[in-house]
Amino acid sequence: MLPIGDGALDALLAQDAPAGDLTTHALGIGSRPGRISFAARSDMVLCCAEEAARLLERAGVRAALRHGSGERIAAGTVFLEGEGPAGGIHLAWKVAQTLVEYASGIATRTRRIVEAAQAVAPGVAVACTRKNFPGTKEISVKAVLAGGAQMHRLGLSETLLVFPEHRVFLDGAPDFHGLKRRHPERKLVVEVASVADAVAAAEAGADVLQLEKLAPDAVAEAVRRVAGLDPVPLVAAAGGITEANAAAYAATGCAVLVTSAPYSAGPTDVQVVITGSGVAS
Amino acid sequence: MLPIGDGALDALLAQDAPAGDLTTHALGIGSRPGRISFAARSDMVLCCAEEAARLLERAGVRAALRHGSGERIAAGTVFLEGEGPAGGIHLAWKVAQTLVEYASGIATRTRRIVEAAQAVAPGVAVACTRKNFPGTKEISVKAVLAGGAQMHRLGLSETLLVFPEHRVFLDGAPDFHGLKRRHPERKLVVEVASVADAVAAAEAGADVLQLEKLAPDAVAEAVRRVAGLDPVPLVAAAGGITEANAAAYAATGCAVLVTSAPYSAGPTDVQVVITGSGVAS
Amino acid sequence: MLPIGDGALDALLAQDAPAGDLTTHALGIGSRPGRISFAARSDMVLCCAEEAARLLERAGVRAALRHGSGERIAAGTVFLEGEGPAGGIHLAWKVAQTLVEYASGIATRTRRIVEAAQAVAPGVAVACTRKNFPGTKEISVKAVLAGGAQMHRLGLSETLLVFPEHRVFLDGAPDFHGLKRRHPERKLVVEVASVADAVAAAEAGADVLQLEKLAPDAVAEAVRRVAGLDPVPLVAAAGGITEANAAAYAATGCAVLVTSAPYSAGPTDVQVVITGSGVAS
Amino acid sequence: MLPIGDGALDALLAQDAPAGDLTTHALGIGSRPGRISFAARSDMVLCCAEEAARLLERAGVRAALRHGSGERIAAGTVFLEGEGPAGGIHLAWKVAQTLVEYASGIATRTRRIVEAAQAVAPGVAVACTRKNFPGTKEISVKAVLAGGAQMHRLGLSETLLVFPEHRVFLDGAPDFHGLKRRHPERKLVVEVASVADAVAAAEAGADVLQLEKLAPDAVAEAVRRVAGLDPVPLVAAAGGITEANAAAYAATGCAVLVTSAPYSAGPTDVQVVITGSGVAS
Amino acid sequence: MLPIGDGALDALLAQDAPAGDLTTHALGIGSRPGRISFAARSDMVLCCAEEAARLLERAGVRAALRHGSGERIAAGTVFLEGEGPAGGIHLAWKVAQTLVEYASGIATRTRRIVEAAQAVAPGVAVACTRKNFPGTKEISVKAVLAGGAQMHRLGLSETLLVFPEHRVFLDGAPDFHGLKRRHPERKLVVEVASVADAVAAAEAGADVLQLEKLAPDAVAEAVRRVAGLDPVPLVAAAGGITEANAAAYAATGCAVLVTSAPYSAGPTDVQVVITGSGVAS
Amino acid sequence: MLPIGDGALDALLAQDAPAGDLTTHALGIGSRPGRISFAARSDMVLCCAEEAARLLERAGVRAALRHGSGERIAAGTVFLEGEGPAGGIHLAWKVAQTLVEYASGIATRTRRIVEAAQAVAPGVAVACTRKNFPGTKEISVKAVLAGGAQMHRLGLSETLLVFPEHRVFLDGAPDFHGLKRRHPERKLVVEVASVADAVAAAEAGADVLQLEKLAPDAVAEAVRRVAGLDPVPLVAAAGGITEANAAAYAATGCAVLVTSAPYSAGPTDVQVVITGSGVAS
Repeated sequence: MLPIGDGALDALLAQDAPAGDLTTHALGIGSRPGRISFAARSDMVLCCAEEAARLLERAGVRAALRHGSGERIAAGTVFLEGEGPAGGIHLAWKVAQTLVEYASGIATRTRRIVEAAQAVAPGVAVACTRKNFPGTKEISVKAVLAGGAQMHRLGLSETLLVFPEHRVFLDGAPDFHGLKRRHPERKLVVEVASVADAVAAAEAGADVLQLEKLAPDAVAEAVRRVAGLDPVPLVAAAGGITEANAAAYAATGCAVLVTSAPYSAGPTDVQVVITGSGVAS
Repeated sequence: MLPIGDGALDALLAQDAPAGDLTTHALGIGSRPGRISFAARSDMVLCCAEEAARLLERAGVRAALRHGSGERIAAGTVFLEGEGPAGGIHLAWKVAQTLVEYASGIATRTRRIVEAAQAVAPGVAVACTRKNFPGTKEISVKAVLAGGAQMHRLGLSETLLVFPEHRVFLDGAPDFHGLKRRHPERKLVVEVASVADAVAAAEAGADVLQLEKLAPDAVAEAVRRVAGLDPVPLVAAAGGITEANAAAYAATGCAVLVTSAPYSAGPTDVQVVITGSGVAS
Repeated sequence: MLPIGDGALDALLAQDAPAGDLTTHALGIGSRPGRISFAARSDMVLCCAEEAARLLERAGVRAALRHGSGERIAAGTVFLEGEGPAGGIHLAWKVAQTLVEYASGIATRTRRIVEAAQAVAPGVAVACTRKNFPGTKEISVKAVLAGGAQMHRLGLSETLLVFPEHRVFLDGAPDFHGLKRRHPERKLVVEVASVADAVAAAEAGADVLQLEKLAPDAVAEAVRRVAGLDPVPLVAAAGGITEANAAAYAATGCAVLVTSAPYSAGPTDVQVVITGSGVAS
Repeated sequence: MLPIGDGALDALLAQDAPAGDLTTHALGIGSRPGRISFAARSDMVLCCAEEAARLLERAGVRAALRHGSGERIAAGTVFLEGEGPAGGIHLAWKVAQTLVEYASGIATRTRRIVEAAQAVAPGVAVACTRKNFPGTKEISVKAVLAGGAQMHRLGLSETLLVFPEHRVFLDGAPDFHGLKRRHPERKLVVEVASVADAVAAAEAGADVLQLEKLAPDAVAEAVRRVAGLDPVPLVAAAGGITEANAAAYAATGCAVLVTSAPYSAGPTDVQVVITGSGVAS
Repeated sequence: MLPIGDGALDALLAQDAPAGDLTTHALGIGSRPGRISFAARSDMVLCCAEEAARLLERAGVRAALRHGSGERIAAGTVFLEGEGPAGGIHLAWKVAQTLVEYASGIATRTRRIVEAAQAVAPGVAVACTRKNFPGTKEISVKAVLAGGAQMHRLGLSETLLVFPEHRVFLDGAPDFHGLKRRHPERKLVVEVASVADAVAAAEAGADVLQLEKLAPDAVAEAVRRVAGLDPVPLVAAAGGITEANAAAYAATGCAVLVTSAPYSAGPTDVQVVITGSGVAS
Repeated sequence: MLPIGDGALDALLAQDAPAGDLTTHALGIGSRPGRISFAARSDMVLCCAEEAARLLERAGVRAALRHGSGERIAAGTVFLEGEGPAGGIHLAWKVAQTLVEYASGIATRTRRIVEAAQAVAPGVAVACTRKNFPGTKEISVKAVLAGGAQMHRLGLSETLLVFPEHRVFLDGAPDFHGLKRRHPERKLVVEVASVADAVAAAEAGADVLQLEKLAPDAVAEAVRRVAGLDPVPLVAAAGGITEANAAAYAATGCAVLVTSAPYSAGPTDVQVVITGSGVAS
């Protein structure tokens, strides 16, 4: 997976401690040797442990990574250890911890949705939207991939996704066949809000029907209604999908669940233990 | 409040649409005139509406702001409207919407904690930690202030906060009076995990006792135990404080509640309506 | 189209004149009023004239834009005029001129390829690769769109494009159907270097066959060979396509031409005239 | 030579693959070991191979550099090899390749102009203008130096170069002697468009006469006409100089050829071979 | 202490030598081996030697650091040595030297003020304002800490410091007790310009009285006047404090001296010796 | 003159107040209307007043600029006024004030050196080195130009300046004539540390002799010794030149004084007055 750049990591450190840890400095303990370890407090899908290790290193602490992004680890598992001066340990501690907590929160929630869906429909895909917390795209995308889902799209520039909000600017019906011919390397995705609109879009040539906030039975109906077309368009269920209802949506026979739920998962707790080197760690 | 810089706003737009909205371009509707409006879907404390307006403007859409950060608005209230070409409207739409949703989520959750606490203890303060989602500090801080709380601290460099993780590097007890004399403009905050430790820290000279994950009755006991000292140290309750237990903690007589809960509030839904100019808006 | 950000424009100015135009300063003429105009020296598809206007404005020169990106303008057509102090005019002059020259060079070359191709196959698409000059993606993409083509892809993260260089890491044949099921919203593009490989990839489930450096008659043969499959995969011709051979490739019946040729078009000359305000302009 | 900064290299990687190579990820081959090699497809002056090696390293691929910037290498010469996981190889591949191709294109074209000129006038200098593709100055300058030329100037702030476009803001003739006295550490360069203007500028005190778009025989005449002055000003021939006419201009006796031609050289092809580690490389 | 980020160091190098050292390049000596050493020209408190070492390393020169930030070193002491190619040595030379000179200038001046003050009042603290040269906060703060002082505050967002310029916006007297209750983790600092105002602010509840530009005897009087209050507020003397008058202010019994004097200390000279490797170093 | 970019100004504001002015926020006065004015406390050469005005504007305060960079203004002269909400006024106040104070300090000191020198040698030039405080080049260069001097050079990449530290890498004497032929558009400057070396360098072809830390009478001797050469090389006096000795150096007949003295001028005090709008301003 793509590593987060040095510049972004340095910015996190500098924003949290523009002049170092004042308390460490005031206590005069900055150069005393110590150890830091990071462990899961509950079962989790780990994410950004590599970046946590690099944060330690950039703060002058030697890091040893025990587990990597995408791994499922059990409560109590130590995934990262460091050794170095107290000044560096305190500098990187919370930044590294918080990064892993939020990223793993997204990854863990993503994995649960994927598992809930694939338990009833092994072939269904799960895709996460671009509605992550602004300013966190790199972390959020890494976490989605670590969780076993894919990105619905990274942004506006890479897909053809016709919203009703595009249609309001058209005088008549959009020319789906023209769109497809001019952009032959992309699928044409059309967002619809009813089964009837889904069928109409399918008949007009949409490759993928993105059903926005329809109940599972309506999704199932749409899947049935377009099954006889040639080619058969794919159905994507979107809007309000969570780990609680992912199985129900997956059971509809749709091809993909589109969800934003992982982004509000909140952090997954990580336990950090810091010891002076004279103390048994 | 401090506005988020132009560069950060441009980065959000460029990251979401490095080459514009492909669908708008493919449909050839980029220059058609239209309108966009943003409204609350539920009662909320608004945040970052100013930045949403500037995102519209930077995308070439004239914006009219109806309500600002920190205002409590009712469901259905339109807080921002824009008018301009479809290309700009689609460019700024989701970036602006998502920014307001996450920021208002934090502001609204913050306000609820403040209100729950101050309903039973009008003078209690609420302070939010620095454990926001990495990369969102500007937005998160603005939302905390909009919600009526304050920041516990922005980062490591500005306060004296002695953790047990600092003490492991000391040979004996820390010299609190020396710390205070060398940093006379700052309070000395000491994190403790028991009532006994709180009393000991108070007797050693701590200005503020930060009780980490103690139950409300333990906090109340600590408040009582240190009430006879001169000067009386302040008690801060920290760890696991949410809108559900804020009242109970506030009732202990402590001076401040320290919480990270607002950061995982998730987005507060905003309804966006886009119309072509020929359509009644 | 997406505007290039203020920060990028300021960086171009600052890199070219970190301390202003020394000659203007040395001559003491910085505040004298003047005019600047930009005109096409030959027929061209204009690009980045909006950014040129903003460069003038950022240097303190009032700008009036006469034509915009994507417009075809004839030799001699003035597309931008400015009025302001000599210091600002000299600051922005060459940066603005050079930006328009390179961007319009790409746009104009792109348009020629599109027109050559569509003259014989009106429905054929033209897509440009991501092999632009490093550091110029924003400008290059804007120019490709202005020229009437689309981007093949902006980068690695948004499409499924299986190269032979991916296959060397696989033990056996790739599972195309599995890939498609897991990524239902994207087409599966497979690069092949022979007609036989194209047919094999099509039979294995590829949605798009990207023929790398095949001659037009081989492309035509591939189109015929896969025409009987259900569904019929699309054929993309890639590698070495220029305005000289675009018609021949378009005549093969393929769906899309993939080309990098516009990026080495070189600049299209722009004539700049600067006058002092006392002189008739 | 100055290395291009880590931040710029990371930006190239992140822009091309904001979420890694989707295809590598989808195929599940990211951690499989492999090798990558880069070789010249034709004789070339190599440039930015050091940066290509660093791009590999930043993507987690160990790199071994065989040849460096400024070296002339023959077709088939391998100049860079790497070994590491498929994920890193695919991440860095095209970014590294494209960077070397464009930079070497400029370096190779520069070298040809230098050689063409110095074949007839061994002492003549070649200087490249600042009219590189916007956003590529670091790469372009490195390539010009690698090609054996020098920069005419990096930007506006470092030289005294009086254009006719400066003179339009003056009421009378510029005071060249005053300029020289106030800026004694710099030469005074004056752009002129005719032999007569060249002689006049020389008599007025110009140190260097920059002849803009004069034919070689006019340049030769200017050289002769100013040869009797004391001191003898230098003549620079500028405008439209390419490898085709460099010899003719060099034969005029001028001191320096000023050219923008290398910037539109286009990329010099580099052959990349990627193998899985089980395969003989 | 917090290291200055790689990006900031690269920016210093790139700004000073956007295209390398032209003279080194022109002489063709870039790859010849050599040595560089940095020594104090006078007794000084060293600062940013770590960054100087990293500048050498980033330019390709192996560095060996002999002394670190905060150490007092005698005239003639070599604190940093490097070995590598002439090109890298010349690239990093002056940037590294200048950085150490300015940072050590601040650190040395800071130390003198601290020593002058503590010679007469061992417990007095010295704090430096945020009025450093714009753009140098990271360096300046590091130097203040290296000099043995602390930061008065890093910026506006972290302290409660009521200026008269705040009061002009209030209708009546500020509610100091309310401010303190709402911000219990911070001290309330109030700037005053007379002894009478100091007493009034103390009686109104200020924790710290910041006396702006009062003479030492007035400061002493203020200290006496507030000594009987319970609790006793701290007195900070600010405005015009230098190493010349620090002792006089310290003798007043105030708790802290607030000074901007170190920022205009000017550079402390560093002697750099460069040798070719054939020469004894 | 070149304006400092928006991004740099926003960075100064954000660094000083990452979360706004806490005191203004805590007092609840952010939206109250007020005025701010900036005046010289002593006679000064003003610099960066334009940027101060833009800082006000960026913080939401309407600004009216009365005097500009490079103007000499008398003590008491108001050069900038603003009107707007207290929040914006407090946000921009010190950043704007400090910027003008340091920049004007450099400009004023520069002007004094220029005047001292030109009083005895009207034609002598003054050039400032690149040894400004790291991170302040934009501001420092603007101030040097505002003060009436020029930059010796902006950095390493633009001039031929042979130090003894270059010569240690050469086996024999440098080939000055070759250097000049290969770089005909630049003067060849050679640093020397004695009159004898100056004469030798002149005879070897140097265009400018930069005398490093020679006393005025030695400079005068060097001027006399090279006066008979054809062409006569220019003499630059460098090292330790201040307003105190500028006249003595100027009297030597040298062409240019090279100085770093202005960079340690320290700030020139600016008086800021802030009033609430109800108060007479």
